[in-house]
Amino acid sequence: MHTIKLILLRPNYYNNWEDFTIKAWVDSNRGNNKLRFININDGSTVKNLQVVLKGKEFDFNLLDQIKNGAAIKVIGTLKATPDAPQPIELVATSIELLSNTENDYPIQNQEINIETLREIPHVRHRTKTLRSAMLIRSTLAQEIHKYFMANDFYLMSSPIITSNDGEGAGEAFNVSDNSPEPFFGQNKKATLGVTGQLHAESYAIGFKKVYTFAPTFRAEHSNTKKHAAEFWMVEPEVAFYELNDVVKLADHMLKTVIKATLAKCKFEFDYLEDHIDKNLRNRLALFTGSKLNVIDYADAIKELAKVKSRFENQDIKFGLDLATEHERYLAEELFNGPVAVINFPKSFKAFYMHQNEDGKTVAAFDLLVPGIGELIGGSQREVRYDKLLERIKEIGIDQEEIQWYLDLRKFGDSGSSGFGLGFERLVMYITGLDNIRDVIPYPRTTGNIRM
Amino acid sequence: MHTIKLILLRPNYYNNWEDFTIKAWVDSNRGNNKLRFININDGSTVKNLQVVLKGKEFDFNLLDQIKNGAAIKVIGTLKATPDAPQPIELVATSIELLSNTENDYPIQNQEINIETLREIPHVRHRTKTLRSAMLIRSTLAQEIHKYFMANDFYLMSSPIITSNDGEGAGEAFNVSDNSPEPFFGQNKKATLGVTGQLHAESYAIGFKKVYTFAPTFRAEHSNTKKHAAEFWMVEPEVAFYELNDVVKLADHMLKTVIKATLAKCKFEFDYLEDHIDKNLRNRLALFTGSKLNVIDYADAIKELAKVKSRFENQDIKFGLDLATEHERYLAEELFNGPVAVINFPKSFKAFYMHQNEDGKTVAAFDLLVPGIGELIGGSQREVRYDKLLERIKEIGIDQEEIQWYLDLRKFGDSGSSGFGLGFERLVMYITGLDNIRDVIPYPRTTGNIRM
Repeated sequence: MHTIKLILLRPNYYNNWEDFTIKAWVDSNRGNNKLRFININDGSTVKNLQVVLKGKEFDFNLLDQIKNGAAIKVIGTLKATPDAPQPIELVATSIELLSNTENDYPIQNQEINIETLREIPHVRHRTKTLRSAMLIRSTLAQEIHKYFMANDFYLMSSPIITSNDGEGAGEAFNVSDNSPEPFFGQNKKATLGVTGQLHAESYAIGFKKVYTFAPTFRAEHSNTKKHAAEFWMVEPEVAFYELNDVVKLADHMLKTVIKATLAKCKFEFDYLEDHIDKNLRNRLALFTGSKLNVIDYADAIKELAKVKSRFENQDIKFGLDLATEHERYLAEELFNGPVAVINFPKSFKAFYMHQNEDGKTVAAFDLLVPGIGELIGGSQREVRYDKLLERIKEIGIDQEEIQWYLDLRKFGDSGSSGFGLGFERLVMYITGLDNIRDVIPYPRTTGNIRM
Repeated sequence: MHTIKLILLRPNYYNNWEDFTIKAWVDSNRGNNKLRFININDGSTVKNLQVVLKGKEFDFNLLDQIKNGAAIKVIGTLKATPDAPQPIELVATSIELLSNTENDYPIQNQEINIETLREIPHVRHRTKTLRSAMLIRSTLAQEIHKYFMANDFYLMSSPIITSNDGEGAGEAFNVSDNSPEPFFGQNKKATLGVTGQLHAESYAIGFKKVYTFAPTFRAEHSNTKKHAAEFWMVEPEVAFYELNDVVKLADHMLKTVIKATLAKCKFEFDYLEDHIDKNLRNRLALFTGSKLNVIDYADAIKELAKVKSRFENQDIKFGLDLATEHERYLAEELFNGPVAVINFPKSFKAFYMHQNEDGKTVAAFDLLVPGIGELIGGSQREVRYDKLLERIKEIGIDQEEIQWYLDLRKFGDSGSSGFGLGFERLVMYITGLDNIRDVIPYPRTTGNIRM
């Protein structure tokens, strides 16, 4: 359990540790035949541990052969170096080459551009930028589980293959097998879930506080920086919660996991600040340190109308489905930080949202963040059977297929609220990386199913 | 955060708590017009909290209307009851009916048989058996994440939609959309992943210790108690590990999460012992308290040959792919507990397994448990490029498709080992339930895509 991360964080504790053994990968190998510095990385952090090799006991011909990316085993003494750029180094007494890299190993230096790296998803996590992003991704995911565990949430596995396509919005992928008979039965629709929400709702009635954290799928042919065909969603659902409660939950969860990730990934944020976004920590601190901005959709429209000349779509009036340009203005300029827009017109929102008294709006919210736009979408669910059925008919959803969901309203449902967090968008927001392809190990987009 | 579970576990702490407010669901409503007992459940545990209503301040006509499954809000004083069967009760000062159930609510008593409950997956978790199983499922899942977090594992998201079908074994589902052009490109295979292992291996080189916890899919038309088309897998992969190391990891992980779940789900295990399997805790304690049995495949064959008359397949010799009857004999009779069988003939094992010196076997293991058979399958991976390529050609896998995976061997791969744990099989083993359909919220099997 003695990782490079721990060693670098606690140089005094590890100082003078003799016969320390580590297996890791080479990040650089420089020096001469008398003194050699090999930087090694074990994946615990983006930072390397410097191995120093000196004296005649080493075979420098062998050392010359050790290439970037090679796996080696080193034994030596850890020495704190308070005056050097690195806090501690490993003075080797022995070194063993476990597995070298061949000449076609693509990561020969750290300067490969990020688009090229997308062609080699099986090795790109061994560069500093991707290593930082992927370490933050894993830490964030684990902190999200931790948050829900600590708050007594039930971890729900909604089905992935489903006959319901959730919102009716977005294209769903079809699932089939090679047999002549349809696997799930004649005339049965089988698609990949675009959300786990409807099923999570059924479990919220009974388990009260539930969440899913699972892959979801959209067959959207749009080729943007923000869209992928396969992405992970976090979807909490809480019985007895109303809109305000779930906005608070979203805010509290985000602040908690961001703070924890900032604390755990110090070196990775250092790296990203130096190379991707100088303002990264400031931006996140502004969010975690402030009260969440909340604005009514109707008021947001008024604000947008004041500056409409700057938008491509200038038809700013009640009923407008906010485009990215509008969302960015609200988050990046008007509030300069995350903002929850609440009470949207029902016309462009999903059928299951609670219909407000005004007859025009639904108790929904979108959480917009700078640089990303919509990070979270959520709502209070419509608990009234008749109102829900009315919308289902209006929108033209097949009632028979969704009857089980309607029936929940007759079975002790006192209402629930929840939201969907696009996990990769959160990783983008937190790393400062602006393309979803760089924050998921093997991205799937239209035309791309590499490896 | 004052859940019924906590209240029942700490009656003295909660004793005399006044104006205690709780929202929950009714499990039973009995008594008369002077004294009423309403058992409520909030999903934190299978046990109920008894609400006592007495005196004239209550409208007993209203109380008569409150049906099983209804959502109610109660305010009252918690009173420890050391002499009663339940340790504490809530003496109500006010009660509010939030949402009743209609007459077609299917859970009218707890005696519905478990097969019938499979028809109503949206409400069956509100029965005691399913509530217990699903609570244990969630606890286990969270403990698995906790185990890997505590041991510095990277949480890996392998792709779900893939052009690789992993083992080449098992039927993969196809993924398509409705557009005339194939979504992922002309002549691109797109299937649902049967394993996340190959991609996890690429991340183990660089991050050292990684794990996935994600849905996997098999279009198997077999209709058994153990098979589902959609199930969750836990797949750790550790660089520099050999077979022995990963067998130890499997054993340690299982023991740790089982012990933690036993401690956290006391009431649920009480219930399952009373109703499903009297021997449940004994069986689990035998496992968590003993050293794992390990037997070489060749020795297992000798043991099976000694008692071959009891098997349907009596052709017991080296090369036999163990059937369930053989696995059960080993786990249930020979060892009476979990056993890891190691070093299988390569003929029926996956192409990526390390080929042993004997030229006949591979460094694989199956962890067999009583009642289930195979719970875990794992191996040391073949790190030698030539050996791996040879098997790929022998088996007839398209080399071009798998070249990226082969290439890892040239890029600083010093070997890794890992395993796949069928999560639902673990839940079956731990709950004593013998059908996979009862341990996953919305089961998908051939012919069944209900809701």
